[in-house]
Amino acid sequence: MSLKVGVVGGGQLARMMIAPAVEIGIELRVLAEEPGMAAALAATAVGDYRDAETVLAFARDVDVVTFDHEHVPQDVLAALVDAGVAVHPGPAALAFAQDKLRMRARLEELGMPQPEWAAVADAAQLQAFVDAHGGRAVVKTPRGGYDGKGVRVVADAGEAADWLAALSGDGRLLVEELVDFTRELAQQVARRPSGELRPYPVVETVQRDGVCAEVIAPAPHASERLVAVAAEIGVGIAEGLGVTGMLAVELFETTDDRLLVNELAMRPHNSGHWSQDGAVTGQFEQHLRAVLDLPLGDPDPRAPWSVMVNILGGPAEDSLADRLPRVFEEHPAVKVHTYGKAPRPGRKVGHVNAAGDDLDAVVYEARAAASLFAD
Amino acid sequence: MSLKVGVVGGGQLARMMIAPAVEIGIELRVLAEEPGMAAALAATAVGDYRDAETVLAFARDVDVVTFDHEHVPQDVLAALVDAGVAVHPGPAALAFAQDKLRMRARLEELGMPQPEWAAVADAAQLQAFVDAHGGRAVVKTPRGGYDGKGVRVVADAGEAADWLAALSGDGRLLVEELVDFTRELAQQVARRPSGELRPYPVVETVQRDGVCAEVIAPAPHASERLVAVAAEIGVGIAEGLGVTGMLAVELFETTDDRLLVNELAMRPHNSGHWSQDGAVTGQFEQHLRAVLDLPLGDPDPRAPWSVMVNILGGPAEDSLADRLPRVFEEHPAVKVHTYGKAPRPGRKVGHVNAAGDDLDAVVYEARAAASLFAD
Repeated sequence: MSLKVGVVGGGQLARMMIAPAVEIGIELRVLAEEPGMAAALAATAVGDYRDAETVLAFARDVDVVTFDHEHVPQDVLAALVDAGVAVHPGPAALAFAQDKLRMRARLEELGMPQPEWAAVADAAQLQAFVDAHGGRAVVKTPRGGYDGKGVRVVADAGEAADWLAALSGDGRLLVEELVDFTRELAQQVARRPSGELRPYPVVETVQRDGVCAEVIAPAPHASERLVAVAAEIGVGIAEGLGVTGMLAVELFETTDDRLLVNELAMRPHNSGHWSQDGAVTGQFEQHLRAVLDLPLGDPDPRAPWSVMVNILGGPAEDSLADRLPRVFEEHPAVKVHTYGKAPRPGRKVGHVNAAGDDLDAVVYEARAAASLFAD
Repeated sequence: MSLKVGVVGGGQLARMMIAPAVEIGIELRVLAEEPGMAAALAATAVGDYRDAETVLAFARDVDVVTFDHEHVPQDVLAALVDAGVAVHPGPAALAFAQDKLRMRARLEELGMPQPEWAAVADAAQLQAFVDAHGGRAVVKTPRGGYDGKGVRVVADAGEAADWLAALSGDGRLLVEELVDFTRELAQQVARRPSGELRPYPVVETVQRDGVCAEVIAPAPHASERLVAVAAEIGVGIAEGLGVTGMLAVELFETTDDRLLVNELAMRPHNSGHWSQDGAVTGQFEQHLRAVLDLPLGDPDPRAPWSVMVNILGGPAEDSLADRLPRVFEEHPAVKVHTYGKAPRPGRKVGHVNAAGDDLDAVVYEARAAASLFAD
């Protein structure tokens, strides 16, 4: 018997499952959107993930289907389940990741701490929320946003006029209070279909222009209480939403010492890339274990501090490979991860991980190495 | 530009280059002996490595050719070099790995400590050596031996009669004194074509039936002097033989406190599998860096102790994958590596790595996990 995992989507998250899959002995099969994507090495099919027949054909000979992203439509997911395919995370859980309004409503039912929010259908409702929350608020399109897209801070409802105009039927926008936070954190949890849970240490994430730039693991200056509350939130959401595989919960730490849930991701997540080199069990191996319902690995850190810095944009004219000699020369202990993607301004094309005992030194090392890939 | 490494041979050493190649962003191309081998995922060609045309065609579009084993014939290597292909390790270095008599002669020139040895052409010469060295000696066929094959301890020349009879022309067998050793060690060194060298910490290897069973890194109870001498031997051989890529030097530690060179391997080696999880830069990433003449990574250990235990033979009826649930359940911190090979008695089908602060606990953990794969 060999274990076969099918991944829908050929991006860098699928790519980074290849290494642990090869080592453990899992056969990875990827349905890529097009040829030559990040996970091309494991791509066994190229096709449209919105087409049920394409995805069903891809799924025919695997033990479980999982995902590089959360965009597979519910009718395609339903067709998989109807055909008896094991799908993790399942359609019911993914629905909450696909629709931020449903996510907010469900978190409210679960009693999870989150920003004040509302579903608004028109400019008057939006303006009323803005006025009631200090004159500014965050408007989000419930579907399709990522890396800062589909998110806008507004003071006037007119600033979301295009999104409001595009609403149809009972369509709503999500509006949230602008949280006064001191920093952003992320809590990852792995959960198996049979119920076993493994929270990772809570980490600090630094965003620039709505995109994750750096992660420090574990989060510095985190009290025992904060660590416990973050894990509790992660575990509560994983169980409450029935997530299987890796879950990432993005959190705000507020000026008045609360943790509020910002966003969710039901897959390996940028905030967990540090774990590839910094944890006993990296998030990509853990995701494979979880979706196969295999016992989970130890998520403990392997060093006092791990720091991940994204490589954004990348060299304008030459490729990442041309920068390797200098990076390796100057940073022999840094771990480089590249995604096999053509550089574009702001695009995530790789990341570096560094680890050690002295946080300042580790941050410096990771930033210095990553900066050699930028321009 | 993308970096392309061609590996001749599709076994587990080529397989274990896949993970670091994907992460760093190196395109790995493997010439496999047959379909479905351990490194099948990266196999871009299947063919006979003894056929120059096959290997030349495979090499046409890569930046460097390297090897999963040392068996590529010198005429094929020469054809590659003549065609302008970068080959690492090169033919001159590989000649010493391919012929143990040449290796012994060259090490003697270099003044390396080694067992007493001789080249013998007939029974009389062999018996004279045996008689002069305490009545027993080790006879080796100069070519083609591995994992205890081609090695025989004899008291009487008649015990090597078949090998002697098979000698032709100026053929010779290698005979070595039977060394009185307390334990076996291995010293790995990475060396780039441009000269940079990085020795790994010397490790203790435990052999059973001529096959590596366990490795402890670093070697316990190793004095500073022993560590320095081992590194000096490794560096001296890498430079003296012009090795590029990973070199492994198997050493005897004698009862009178000397280190003697036993065998060499010019490729990643079983004695370095611990480094995949236990060193900042694992030997497979290091080999890729070295053969591409990229600056080498930090070979330092990431934990006080790392232990590797081979999975030999494997389950008789079911596969390794069927054992994963119990191994993962009982050993959440152990790293499992499998080779995608059908189990056969004594065959290396995988290994496990464990790491930690307490050597006894780490040894126990690694052995216990590996034993769950055996029968």
